[in-house]
Amino acid sequence: MLRFLNAGESHGPALTAIVEGMPAGVPVTEEYINTQLARRQMGYGRGGRMKIERDQVEFTAGVRGGFTLGTPICLVIRNRDYANWEKIMTPSPSADLDEMVVTRPRPGHADLAGAIKYNHADIRNVLERASARETATRVAVGALGRRLLEMFGIQIFGHVVQIGSVRAVIPPSYEEVRRLAAASELFCADPEAEQAMKTEIDASKEAGDSLGGIFEVVVTNLPVGLGSFVQWDRKLDGRLAQAVMSIQAVKGVEIGMGFRAATLPGSQVHDEIFYDSGGFYRCTNRAGGLEGGITNGEPLVIRAAMKPIPTLYKPLKSVDLATKEPFAASVERSDTCAVPAAAVVAEAAVAFELARAMIEKFGGDSLAEMQRNYEAYVAYVRQV
Amino acid sequence: MLRFLNAGESHGPALTAIVEGMPAGVPVTEEYINTQLARRQMGYGRGGRMKIERDQVEFTAGVRGGFTLGTPICLVIRNRDYANWEKIMTPSPSADLDEMVVTRPRPGHADLAGAIKYNHADIRNVLERASARETATRVAVGALGRRLLEMFGIQIFGHVVQIGSVRAVIPPSYEEVRRLAAASELFCADPEAEQAMKTEIDASKEAGDSLGGIFEVVVTNLPVGLGSFVQWDRKLDGRLAQAVMSIQAVKGVEIGMGFRAATLPGSQVHDEIFYDSGGFYRCTNRAGGLEGGITNGEPLVIRAAMKPIPTLYKPLKSVDLATKEPFAASVERSDTCAVPAAAVVAEAAVAFELARAMIEKFGGDSLAEMQRNYEAYVAYVRQV
Amino acid sequence: MLRFLNAGESHGPALTAIVEGMPAGVPVTEEYINTQLARRQMGYGRGGRMKIERDQVEFTAGVRGGFTLGTPICLVIRNRDYANWEKIMTPSPSADLDEMVVTRPRPGHADLAGAIKYNHADIRNVLERASARETATRVAVGALGRRLLEMFGIQIFGHVVQIGSVRAVIPPSYEEVRRLAAASELFCADPEAEQAMKTEIDASKEAGDSLGGIFEVVVTNLPVGLGSFVQWDRKLDGRLAQAVMSIQAVKGVEIGMGFRAATLPGSQVHDEIFYDSGGFYRCTNRAGGLEGGITNGEPLVIRAAMKPIPTLYKPLKSVDLATKEPFAASVERSDTCAVPAAAVVAEAAVAFELARAMIEKFGGDSLAEMQRNYEAYVAYVRQV
Amino acid sequence: MLRFLNAGESHGPALTAIVEGMPAGVPVTEEYINTQLARRQMGYGRGGRMKIERDQVEFTAGVRGGFTLGTPICLVIRNRDYANWEKIMTPSPSADLDEMVVTRPRPGHADLAGAIKYNHADIRNVLERASARETATRVAVGALGRRLLEMFGIQIFGHVVQIGSVRAVIPPSYEEVRRLAAASELFCADPEAEQAMKTEIDASKEAGDSLGGIFEVVVTNLPVGLGSFVQWDRKLDGRLAQAVMSIQAVKGVEIGMGFRAATLPGSQVHDEIFYDSGGFYRCTNRAGGLEGGITNGEPLVIRAAMKPIPTLYKPLKSVDLATKEPFAASVERSDTCAVPAAAVVAEAAVAFELARAMIEKFGGDSLAEMQRNYEAYVAYVRQV
Repeated sequence: MLRFLNAGESHGPALTAIVEGMPAGVPVTEEYINTQLARRQMGYGRGGRMKIERDQVEFTAGVRGGFTLGTPICLVIRNRDYANWEKIMTPSPSADLDEMVVTRPRPGHADLAGAIKYNHADIRNVLERASARETATRVAVGALGRRLLEMFGIQIFGHVVQIGSVRAVIPPSYEEVRRLAAASELFCADPEAEQAMKTEIDASKEAGDSLGGIFEVVVTNLPVGLGSFVQWDRKLDGRLAQAVMSIQAVKGVEIGMGFRAATLPGSQVHDEIFYDSGGFYRCTNRAGGLEGGITNGEPLVIRAAMKPIPTLYKPLKSVDLATKEPFAASVERSDTCAVPAAAVVAEAAVAFELARAMIEKFGGDSLAEMQRNYEAYVAYVRQV
Repeated sequence: MLRFLNAGESHGPALTAIVEGMPAGVPVTEEYINTQLARRQMGYGRGGRMKIERDQVEFTAGVRGGFTLGTPICLVIRNRDYANWEKIMTPSPSADLDEMVVTRPRPGHADLAGAIKYNHADIRNVLERASARETATRVAVGALGRRLLEMFGIQIFGHVVQIGSVRAVIPPSYEEVRRLAAASELFCADPEAEQAMKTEIDASKEAGDSLGGIFEVVVTNLPVGLGSFVQWDRKLDGRLAQAVMSIQAVKGVEIGMGFRAATLPGSQVHDEIFYDSGGFYRCTNRAGGLEGGITNGEPLVIRAAMKPIPTLYKPLKSVDLATKEPFAASVERSDTCAVPAAAVVAEAAVAFELARAMIEKFGGDSLAEMQRNYEAYVAYVRQV
Repeated sequence: MLRFLNAGESHGPALTAIVEGMPAGVPVTEEYINTQLARRQMGYGRGGRMKIERDQVEFTAGVRGGFTLGTPICLVIRNRDYANWEKIMTPSPSADLDEMVVTRPRPGHADLAGAIKYNHADIRNVLERASARETATRVAVGALGRRLLEMFGIQIFGHVVQIGSVRAVIPPSYEEVRRLAAASELFCADPEAEQAMKTEIDASKEAGDSLGGIFEVVVTNLPVGLGSFVQWDRKLDGRLAQAVMSIQAVKGVEIGMGFRAATLPGSQVHDEIFYDSGGFYRCTNRAGGLEGGITNGEPLVIRAAMKPIPTLYKPLKSVDLATKEPFAASVERSDTCAVPAAAVVAEAAVAFELARAMIEKFGGDSLAEMQRNYEAYVAYVRQV
Repeated sequence: MLRFLNAGESHGPALTAIVEGMPAGVPVTEEYINTQLARRQMGYGRGGRMKIERDQVEFTAGVRGGFTLGTPICLVIRNRDYANWEKIMTPSPSADLDEMVVTRPRPGHADLAGAIKYNHADIRNVLERASARETATRVAVGALGRRLLEMFGIQIFGHVVQIGSVRAVIPPSYEEVRRLAAASELFCADPEAEQAMKTEIDASKEAGDSLGGIFEVVVTNLPVGLGSFVQWDRKLDGRLAQAVMSIQAVKGVEIGMGFRAATLPGSQVHDEIFYDSGGFYRCTNRAGGLEGGITNGEPLVIRAAMKPIPTLYKPLKSVDLATKEPFAASVERSDTCAVPAAAVVAEAAVAFELARAMIEKFGGDSLAEMQRNYEAYVAYVRQV
């Protein structure tokens, strides 16, 4: 069973993740992970902070000579700015806890509820962990899943569908979408829309406001039969929904046609089944690759809505936790739009969940064993 | 830790669920569960089958004299029609497995992928379990969660927001929504829209087609601090998304403003914070009661999209699993629209997940102990 | 992932278990399970109760026509005596809760601590579940695991090593042990010791006392590589220890040489490694088939100590929960010795855990797929 | 829910653990953890390696200013010797994988089965993780559990009962045992036996052999009601057995009287119940503090058997994995006896499991909340 835990405060010494259950013998390097980390830091509309931290992962366990050992993998992303924060963030009792205290909860963040839940007078103790900084580890962890999927010819990519009021027109071919998105600063497969998005981002920044958007993750070449309908918590659609909804700022998730399926008659929603020498196939993919909670062999398509970043230049009303005095919450430095980054995080979350489903179905402690089991299954499917 | 497993084929002897982790001393009766089961079977647009099965639950463990014992609770819903199916569904090797064999996979169901995954030549072995019949147990299980929540004054209700092309206009007061939905045959809080929905259902039925829709679940009086931001799999938004997305035919889930939040500037999306003698509060609830994956004290609002029922009178093209011959998939008897039922199932799924979150936060092996812990926490929150 | 939950009070309507994660296509019948249930009810030294309940299992889900469906399996053992208990045990609020109230905690049982934990004034609410009656479901659940193991040629058997002060001399051949134990009323492979054990049981019964003992479970033909050393909770020795120690009345568990290994020099404890055309092998099995938390290809050998049944004719001092008055705890009807039964329960617990480990390693949703993966692995091992 | 994952190879860059689910506000320092790590490295009979590595933990997440944040805690123990190993252990593809290759499996280790399972030609890839070096992180993780327990007045200590053929005579008072063990180089509460143990260790070393032994962990001041009898995997005896049996080289675990309970009549095994103004109590503690899988308020007593270290100077026969040639396995440097260290690891494993059980029962996200719930429960218990 593939699983992970991660840890780390935004301004603490490091972010760390331990990933358990990867088979032995999977080729992987720090550079491979770093490529994904770099993608998370891209995107038009980011503030200054992203430039400070060029995230670099370090394997401190589980990988040797470029291959996984089958043992738990430890991924560390050091905070290069920690020296500047050590005085107040150190684990030692010598920490200066009277500096940089935060008592002003920001609307749209975990600040207020988190401080109450954990009995913290200093909201810093909440925001350091609740921050989207944590998604760096999710990307690193997901990159391991992505690497495993690659060993089976499974490809995964994300792209931006909407930012603010601008909606992209998506080409019908997944291959085309991938190519165009890869070439776009906003991971958007519609160059015209991309231009309009940039304009809207600029205007939003000017206004001291922020923007959210919608992104999509597509996974191709998945085998039939991942996930299961036999128990609610094994349904792959539910598991993917959890993985994506748990990403900071995501407020909606849909698969295939998603919400639009609710508005059309059944005759326009389901994917008819055909057969030729290559086996069963569909001409449409309205289900987004999942029927009954299991993969049906078509590309998996999942979309999510990200709310605008809640840290605004434009002030929002709030109340000081200590004094109970009202104040206007505003910040001096922030991103205007982080939708492309969120798409990268979602790719990672989906990749990890699919890697988990692959390991459940095919077992195996080494890549060779897992591939052997996989090939035998694929051969079986071909002759069903 | 609250958890459950359920079992049962549609035409098998019974559906069964075991729920583990409920505190002792919670008052609950079979009648209470049956009321929820009956709600699942209501709704305009249902076919004939719903009338056959008036679901009745039976406790066979964990409840004595109207109170939970703290031991695992076993809920059984017998299939009153089993006698007619016994010959082909019996667990005994004497079963007649050549009768009622299904080799024709229906688009939009788990049929084809499920048969391949589990190596079944008879698709009956898939559809008997993948069927929405299973949701009866989820409602029964969720009713236990609902009962526990009631002990803390937490209320939960669902209502239908859209069916096919008809969208309801929802009154701003949750209390009003609840009242109106309770009085509606479609659990819809907009009587005018309800009328239009019925017309659309009738037309769809006439056309041999089916309809999906959108429903919403609202939970009021939740304490601040359920769920957590500290680890991805403890975020309550993600867990709720899994719970709801795993319901048969659900293709999208959103919380609070959901997908609309993606299209608006940040200044119109976040809920400003205020304070008076009653403590912190908000004037808006765009976040749907969840910030950073934890409850913030506002009502929890979650919406989901249900695709139209894939079993149509109107034929869809498919291919026989055994002969590989194409055929036109159609059925003689089915529901046209099951959105109200899905809303009831979603209430149950949400109730169970919230009960789980309550038990995690407040611990306790008896209701008295859990309430004592809860009251002390609420008193603490009031003076933050 | 194989898992289960069970439910049921001793005098409630039924014991129920749901087993999730079995592959499809495994041949299994109620008779097969009943054979194991009957073995649990055998054994010299049992009281009258065992005769009342001839346990019979009923599959109510997950099995059709003699084969598993891949869906959750529901096993029900009805309480044939329930009619006599219904008045006081019914889940309905109409239960007569003033009858058969137990306020006198018995030493050696969960009675006192359980009543305090769950805030029960009537200890019946504890003892109905904490009773060894629950082991009937563990045997039924384990029989499913045993059946799966058989599909891979894996054999499992238990035998009694000691009762009270009488220790058996165990023949060196596992095959011989199995044959002799199967022929013994006490599952003891030493006929002479068996005779002495019976004498000791008779004497103990006469004295109003009870006896415990030591039993051993042996599993042959396991593949190399079940379990893992990579994370503490994946070590098979730990998992087996939990499975066996969680059986009612078990107070000690050991693997291979167990406690004796602590007293000998290393040179007499480890199993040297040899090789011939059949591959690697050992001439000794002091490790009991597990090194580093994984199976090494030798038979798995696990032993456990069962304390004497705490329900004695001979009175033990205790204190009434309601009145706080001291009393002498004694019972009128009980077993004198249940060690053979415990051996059967332990076989089942071990079988289930090994089936779980097999599914983790070999994956697969159908028996055919799992066997294909297994065969390919075995072929690989042969050529290492 | 308290949980952890750990990672790290013996000669890799670092050992790391992430602990999730600790409440906020628990005072803890690196020094506190280091004290426990140092105890693991003590003990008469250790080889040279222990001196090289003076383990020091570093918190890189979850602790600030000497207090837990409620967020995941990351514990890192760097390998001070890594520079000497980097060339062959580096995660980079540049690693020299032809150096220090191990093809000779050692009897009594995971070497052979591990290499087969994970398809490793170089046994180093197994032994680096399967090694007892990993127990350093288990001690660090357990120290966090111990710290939490201290906040509730719960004390935990281990002591050595037997080494090789020498058995200690244990004083009846736990307090005395603790005091004497703390003063002993072998954590042995019998000074005379300690002397004999040392002599036996010296003789064993001289003979190129190794010794195992038996140790005991005692926990005092536990509340009634941790763990549960309601489901097999919630029984605290089973969970503790898993925690302890999963420690490297442990082959047996027993609670209270353990295996001796199997040989005595029931009248001499169960703990009679008494009552006075302080509540219910026992005059004996044969059950070792656990009845029916839950704590009964008496001290928890758990013992384990450790086999002799399998790395001997004295050669054991084995077979080369690559050449299939027989060889004599021997080592030049190793411990002779590590039983005292294992006792420290077991303390940690038990502490963590009990901390988990405490959090399950009392809930709470901050220490203040957890203590409040605990105090209210303790007050309730007093008046039962």
